[in-house]
Amino acid sequence: MGLREEPLSKLNIGIISMKTIDVCLTPDLTHLYDIENSIVVAVDIFRATSCMTTAFANGVQAIIPVETIEECVAYQQQGFLAAAERNGITPEGFDFDNSPFSYMVDKVKGAKISVTTTNGTVAIARSKAAIQVLVGSFLNIGAIASYLKSQNHNVLVVCAGWKGKPNLEDTLFAGALIERLADDFETADDAARMALVQYQLAKATLQETVTAASSHVRRLKKLGIEKDIAYCLQHDIYEVIPVLKGVELVDLRGN
Amino acid sequence: MGLREEPLSKLNIGIISMKTIDVCLTPDLTHLYDIENSIVVAVDIFRATSCMTTAFANGVQAIIPVETIEECVAYQQQGFLAAAERNGITPEGFDFDNSPFSYMVDKVKGAKISVTTTNGTVAIARSKAAIQVLVGSFLNIGAIASYLKSQNHNVLVVCAGWKGKPNLEDTLFAGALIERLADDFETADDAARMALVQYQLAKATLQETVTAASSHVRRLKKLGIEKDIAYCLQHDIYEVIPVLKGVELVDLRGN
Repeated sequence: MGLREEPLSKLNIGIISMKTIDVCLTPDLTHLYDIENSIVVAVDIFRATSCMTTAFANGVQAIIPVETIEECVAYQQQGFLAAAERNGITPEGFDFDNSPFSYMVDKVKGAKISVTTTNGTVAIARSKAAIQVLVGSFLNIGAIASYLKSQNHNVLVVCAGWKGKPNLEDTLFAGALIERLADDFETADDAARMALVQYQLAKATLQETVTAASSHVRRLKKLGIEKDIAYCLQHDIYEVIPVLKGVELVDLRGN
Repeated sequence: MGLREEPLSKLNIGIISMKTIDVCLTPDLTHLYDIENSIVVAVDIFRATSCMTTAFANGVQAIIPVETIEECVAYQQQGFLAAAERNGITPEGFDFDNSPFSYMVDKVKGAKISVTTTNGTVAIARSKAAIQVLVGSFLNIGAIASYLKSQNHNVLVVCAGWKGKPNLEDTLFAGALIERLADDFETADDAARMALVQYQLAKATLQETVTAASSHVRRLKKLGIEKDIAYCLQHDIYEVIPVLKGVELVDLRGN
């Protein structure tokens, strides 16, 4: 009945092996992965990690990802800017809406921002035990890939998904990163190989694929979403690498 | 930050909707799905549910899936035949090995068999709250599809995966079932759409795709596995529909 044995990598039989890259399709599966011995790339394409990447590209000093609205407000009361999202909605009283375009403003420069979101900040929180936690998006995928090639560690992409379920866009990012790293890393497991297949099939028509798969979203949300989708699917427009340092995300290049 | 809202199907706004089909990629995600209001198809292609399908095709009266080796032995001591597997290995003292070919013997006819496996019986156990739990494999996929079309319920495929992680072959089965049901069901979520894409890309070369993805398995296991893989990937060779009735799986057609 179970055909499979443990992967060779766990047998410790003296084979010199390549670095591996694996994909955890949702934060609800992080308990199954070797987070402690990996560099984690946390991703929430629509739109937490695309927003964070954009914020660093626009000069933010630090982002504090927090799990609750209350923690986010507490930071705001200490003078931080604050961004919150639950179920796709921005509660009142926060400094940013859900769009990455809201981070392209002067007040971002040099600021510290506390952030809580439905999925993205959960992915970061569940990854804290990692060697390093990076924040990835298509916007900075090239910078992330170059950095990972330079490090001697296995990589785990932790997808934010949607309330515990896998989603298409984060899986596509994982596949894109695996493609970029194909010469230096081998895929650890079936989830990684499936993500690569999804991306290779979709990449020529990425926006159409994502939009078609989210047709119910399009019916609900009319304004601004198409612009955000197109923006978040752009590859390699920023060189920033947000990395978790203590409780804060900072830009790895300056730290 | 989360772009998505709740799917329209949950909004209860009076739209007459098609039946939906969704995919739970591993038993570790069953808590996220509406099992109570679905017919579940539990699948563990290599090899638990392929073995069960084969056993019914060879005249078994009932299969009792149990969670522990001890429960399995207890049934054996009551006169049941018994099959057990952990980590791909058959412990000593059981009546069947892990191959579906071991069920093509006279003693299966009219017998009751207790079964425990690493992944397959977990998928069945986690699905018990469903309207009905069917056991699916490529071997009986056509019979399963025809039955689901005739029922007025949403469908959830629960993949056994490998120790909580998604695997390729169970995901491919989900995609194949979705393809068969495309005229009558709509995909509920991204996992289902991704499974369909995987299957459509792989179906012309299914055995090669599965074997390539499991190359580490091939290095470890030499004898019989290629034969089992080829057998388990055959479509539509049996008409049996194993269904959970109380604690027993029986053939739906005779019950």
